[in-house]
Amino acid sequence: MSPRVASENLTAFCVEALSKVGMREDDACVAADVLVTTDMMGVFTHGTKNLSRYIRRLRAGGLDPRAVPEVVKEGASWAVVDGRSGMAMVTSCRAMRIAIEKAEATGIAYVGVRNSCHFGAAGYYALMAARHDMIGLSMSNDIPSMTAPGARGHILGTNPLALAIPAGKEYPILLDIALSTVAGSKVYQALSQGHPIPDTWIVNGDGLPTTDASVYPHRASMLPMAGHKGYGLALLVEALSALVSGACCRNEVGSWLWDDGTKPTGHGHAFVAVHVGAIEPIARFKDRIDGMIRAIRESPKAKGSDRIFLPGEMEFEKMDDARKHGIPLPQDVVDSLLALVEEMGLDSGVLFGPSGEAPGALK
Amino acid sequence: MSPRVASENLTAFCVEALSKVGMREDDACVAADVLVTTDMMGVFTHGTKNLSRYIRRLRAGGLDPRAVPEVVKEGASWAVVDGRSGMAMVTSCRAMRIAIEKAEATGIAYVGVRNSCHFGAAGYYALMAARHDMIGLSMSNDIPSMTAPGARGHILGTNPLALAIPAGKEYPILLDIALSTVAGSKVYQALSQGHPIPDTWIVNGDGLPTTDASVYPHRASMLPMAGHKGYGLALLVEALSALVSGACCRNEVGSWLWDDGTKPTGHGHAFVAVHVGAIEPIARFKDRIDGMIRAIRESPKAKGSDRIFLPGEMEFEKMDDARKHGIPLPQDVVDSLLALVEEMGLDSGVLFGPSGEAPGALK
Repeated sequence: MSPRVASENLTAFCVEALSKVGMREDDACVAADVLVTTDMMGVFTHGTKNLSRYIRRLRAGGLDPRAVPEVVKEGASWAVVDGRSGMAMVTSCRAMRIAIEKAEATGIAYVGVRNSCHFGAAGYYALMAARHDMIGLSMSNDIPSMTAPGARGHILGTNPLALAIPAGKEYPILLDIALSTVAGSKVYQALSQGHPIPDTWIVNGDGLPTTDASVYPHRASMLPMAGHKGYGLALLVEALSALVSGACCRNEVGSWLWDDGTKPTGHGHAFVAVHVGAIEPIARFKDRIDGMIRAIRESPKAKGSDRIFLPGEMEFEKMDDARKHGIPLPQDVVDSLLALVEEMGLDSGVLFGPSGEAPGALK
Repeated sequence: MSPRVASENLTAFCVEALSKVGMREDDACVAADVLVTTDMMGVFTHGTKNLSRYIRRLRAGGLDPRAVPEVVKEGASWAVVDGRSGMAMVTSCRAMRIAIEKAEATGIAYVGVRNSCHFGAAGYYALMAARHDMIGLSMSNDIPSMTAPGARGHILGTNPLALAIPAGKEYPILLDIALSTVAGSKVYQALSQGHPIPDTWIVNGDGLPTTDASVYPHRASMLPMAGHKGYGLALLVEALSALVSGACCRNEVGSWLWDDGTKPTGHGHAFVAVHVGAIEPIARFKDRIDGMIRAIRESPKAKGSDRIFLPGEMEFEKMDDARKHGIPLPQDVVDSLLALVEEMGLDSGVLFGPSGEAPGALK
C-alpha cells in the first residue's frame, strides 16, 4: 500500500528544502504548491518526484534561486516575461497572473516567457485561469525528443499543452497533454519498472517502432500523437513559447535532466487567458457548460465501460481524496524524497511522522 | 487523368452560381475564393464539391443569401459576430478580419461567431492571419458525430481546428485538422469509392471498431484523434466556438448536409489572431521560423522516406501548381459541378471550355 502523506506536510517539506538552497520563502511556497498540487492530482511523474532534480540545478547555479522574473515588454493584451533562469514555477505563475490581469481588461491576453526551465505540469497554470472564470491555455517547449513524419531523430520537443475551461457547479474541464503519443516520463517510468512499452510510443534510430524503452532518449525518438496532427500542434507550441517570446528554440534549449547543471536551459512558455465573462454573461456560460458536462457524463456507455469521464475529472477526484486522506505517494517518489532528506540533512518527520519509521499515515 | 480547370474559371463559375441564388456579388466572390483556394490546395472534400449543397440551403432558406453578418458586441480584444444565418465563408472572413484589426491594436484578439453554418476549410481563415504576419487560429463546432472515451454514440462534433504561422521566405506553416482520427468526409469518400476503412476511424453502435463505412454516421461514430487528447481539444473548440460566442452547442447544431434545408444550422466558430510583430521584432521572428523550417526539412529521413514536409507545404505546392497548370479536379467534383450546371441552367463553358465536351484543359 502506498504511504499517505498530508499535502500540508509535503508542502512544508518542499518549502523547507527549497528555502535551504536559497529561495525566498514566498517563491518556495509558489513552487511547492505547483509540485504538491500535481501529486494530489495523481500526476506523480511531474510532482515532488522532481524536487531533487530542481534542487540539483538550484545548487549548481543553472537555476538561480534568487531570480526575480521581469516583464521586459508589454502591451494592452500581451507581455513577455524574462524568467532570469529562476524556478520556472515561480515565473510561470507570475506570467499567468499577468495574462489573467490583462484579459480582465481587454478580453484575452498572451504572455510569453523566455529564459525559463522545466515548469512541471502545464495544467496547473491553465487551471489558475479557470479559477478566475477564464479559459486558460499553457504550454512550453522542451529539448527535441520527438520525431516528425518522414524523419528520424529528434525534431521537436514533446511540447506540453494544457487547457482549462471554467464550469459552474461541475469541476472545470482540464486537459494536460504532451504532443507525443505519451509523455517522455512514461517511457522512463516503464524503463525504471522494467516493463516493455507499446510499439506506438517511440521509434528507434532508423525511425522504426520499438518496444525497448532503454533506447530512449539517446537512440530513439517519441512519436507525435496522431502523426501529422501532433507534429503541427507541436510547431504551434514552439512558435508561441519560443519564437514569439524570444526564448531558446528546439536544439538551443538545454536538457533540465541531463545537461550541465551550471548552465541555464532557456526554455520558453506561453500562457493565454480568455475572459469569458467579458464576452458572454458568465452565469449563462456556466449553465451551458454544466449542461454539456452532464449530458456527456450521462451519455450511453461503450460495451465494457461503466463511466464517461470529462477531462480532468479523474484528477479532481484524486485531489479531493488527497485532501481528505493524504496523497498516496508511489514508492519511487518516496524514495526520491528520502534520498533528499539524507542528502540535505532535512527532517523526514515533517513528511512521514516524528517516529521516522515507515512512511506514516495522515495525522 | 483529372481535368484541369483554371482557378479563375472555377471562381467565375462559383460567383455566377451563388449570384443566381441571390448573393451579392462581393459576398459571392468571398465565398468562391474560399472554396476555390481549398480546391487549389488539393483539399477537394471541402472545396467546390460542396457548392451544390450550399446552394440547396441558400434556395431553401436555411441559409440567407442576403444576410449581413453583424458585430453584436465587442471590446478591446474581442468581438462576437452574428452570422444571421448567411453563408459561413462570408461571416468567417469578416470575423477573421476583425480579429486581425483588433490584434493589430492590442496584440491578440478573439472573435466568436454565432448563427453560422459549415464554413468549409478552417485553414483558409487561419491563413488570412498569417498573410498579415500574425499567427492565426480558426475553429468550428459541428453536429456531434464523434464519440468520447468510454462512450458510444455521438458526443461531440469532429470540431475542425486550423493554425497558421507566418514565415519569411518559406511557406507559412498551416495545419487544418479534424479532431477525429480522420474527417467525416474521408469516411463518405471511402464509401462513395466502395473502399473499406481502417478500423481506427470509427466505432459502431456498441462502441466497437468497424471497417464498414456505410454505418456512418447513423449507426457509428468517429473516434477522437489520440483518444482523450482529441476529446479534450474538441471540448476546447466547442467552448470557444459555441459557449463563449453564444452559438448553438452540440445537439443544438443542425446538420448542414442532412437536416431540413429551410432551417438554419446555428454553427459557431472562433477566430484568434496573434500580432507577432507587436511582441517580437518581425524580422527576427521570420529569420528564426525560416531557420526552424529549414532545419526540420534538412533533418535525417526515416528509412523509406525521402522527404520531410512541413505542415501545409504539400498544399502550398499544389496551390502553386494549380495556379500554373489549373486545378486537377477529381471526377466526383466534376460530376457535382456538372449536375449543378444542369440543375441551374448555367454555362458549363465557363468551366470546361466553350465546346462543352469533355472537361477541357487550361487555356
